[in-house]
Amino acid sequence: MQFTSEQRLDDGVLERAFTLGEVPGVLWTSGTGPAPLILSGHNGGLHKRNPRLVARARHYAAEYGYAVAAIDHPGHGDRPRSAADEQHRADLRRAIQAGEPVDGIVDAFIVPLVDRAVPEWQATLDALLSLPEIAGPVGYSGMTAVGIRLAVVEPRISAAGFFAGGFVPRVLREEARQVTLPLQFLLQWDDEGNDRQQALDLFDAFGSEEKTLHANLGGHAGTPWFEVDDGARFFARHLT
Amino acid sequence: MQFTSEQRLDDGVLERAFTLGEVPGVLWTSGTGPAPLILSGHNGGLHKRNPRLVARARHYAAEYGYAVAAIDHPGHGDRPRSAADEQHRADLRRAIQAGEPVDGIVDAFIVPLVDRAVPEWQATLDALLSLPEIAGPVGYSGMTAVGIRLAVVEPRISAAGFFAGGFVPRVLREEARQVTLPLQFLLQWDDEGNDRQQALDLFDAFGSEEKTLHANLGGHAGTPWFEVDDGARFFARHLT
Repeated sequence: MQFTSEQRLDDGVLERAFTLGEVPGVLWTSGTGPAPLILSGHNGGLHKRNPRLVARARHYAAEYGYAVAAIDHPGHGDRPRSAADEQHRADLRRAIQAGEPVDGIVDAFIVPLVDRAVPEWQATLDALLSLPEIAGPVGYSGMTAVGIRLAVVEPRISAAGFFAGGFVPRVLREEARQVTLPLQFLLQWDDEGNDRQQALDLFDAFGSEEKTLHANLGGHAGTPWFEVDDGARFFARHLT
Repeated sequence: MQFTSEQRLDDGVLERAFTLGEVPGVLWTSGTGPAPLILSGHNGGLHKRNPRLVARARHYAAEYGYAVAAIDHPGHGDRPRSAADEQHRADLRRAIQAGEPVDGIVDAFIVPLVDRAVPEWQATLDALLSLPEIAGPVGYSGMTAVGIRLAVVEPRISAAGFFAGGFVPRVLREEARQVTLPLQFLLQWDDEGNDRQQALDLFDAFGSEEKTLHANLGGHAGTPWFEVDDGARFFARHLT
């Protein structure tokens, strides 16, 4: 892991860009630790294109003392898109606009993404936990599909907050039954790109003994800010 | 309103029993106020039979400085049951055990209860708000059926937390569309006596622009304790 830049932000949070092989990432910390760690998984491209995610990461670091890390998944953010990535995105847009079923496209697009992203997260976790300022325990927050696989294969993850606003392939909806860690599942009730019943079925499928659904009125990007603090308190119950 | 007993509890909360006409109630306060007020509506009988509700009321008073009031609804707790009450209860038990539809029985049982309980809550509210130690604003927390009507007819209620674990008559499920105040709706995912889909439909029906569903794994009485604090913070956003 190589740090490529760092800046101290006006809330006192230290924001450091890093690369781990071909994977670019950002780490937000406050204080000198050793801090618990939250992995922030998302579909978009890091901090430059996700002001809400950055605001959340900085809030978690500044207010709660968590270390927060984000990486760009393959084909996302600053990483090159393959011809297949471009084709999947075009297919998905076309199917949604035409009101056609997307399951087949989502499977073809997201399953290989998860297969590649999860080992990258695990390597990132190895590197982060070797830093003196990060001690764990470790939580995961964000994209559901990657989070399900990570929760199943990675014993160092102790709790997870999933956002039910992305496409979850069928095989991962099945894998959800193997998820057993404490879970907070965040649903936007009127998410234009997300089937509500499918999300409720997914919440039902998780194998966790402690799982909580938070559903709020509004579309994909309308999650109210108080859910950021609710998420932080969920992690505080399980990571500290 | 006549106070009939009072005791200072070991958490510093002052617990006072009162009567208002034929309605018995309990008021929990801490400090000298003037405090915001939470009306705690429930089906069972006051503090003697609801240790969880009492624990919540004391926690709200001790930790958050709310005044909390509970009353016995007609035919509940210390209040006499009519022959009709007994018949409705027996009918409901029998229908549930037989797996028969309960809508008709719920309508016959709960609609008259709501019609009587809501004016009692309003008279209680008049009396409570005349006390120097209570200033408002006012929230309602508890039984959904009574809460819907109260939220619709009582402009002094500013926010409500409903527990989706009771029977809600059809007319009140319709009335839910007229509820416009900020709402937190608490659902036990495996509540043996509560139809999950009907509860989700009810959440969908509320007319509020800000509404949040919290669903947790487990049966009717299994709501995790952290929801008590989540509820308090919901009220803090709207009552302070």
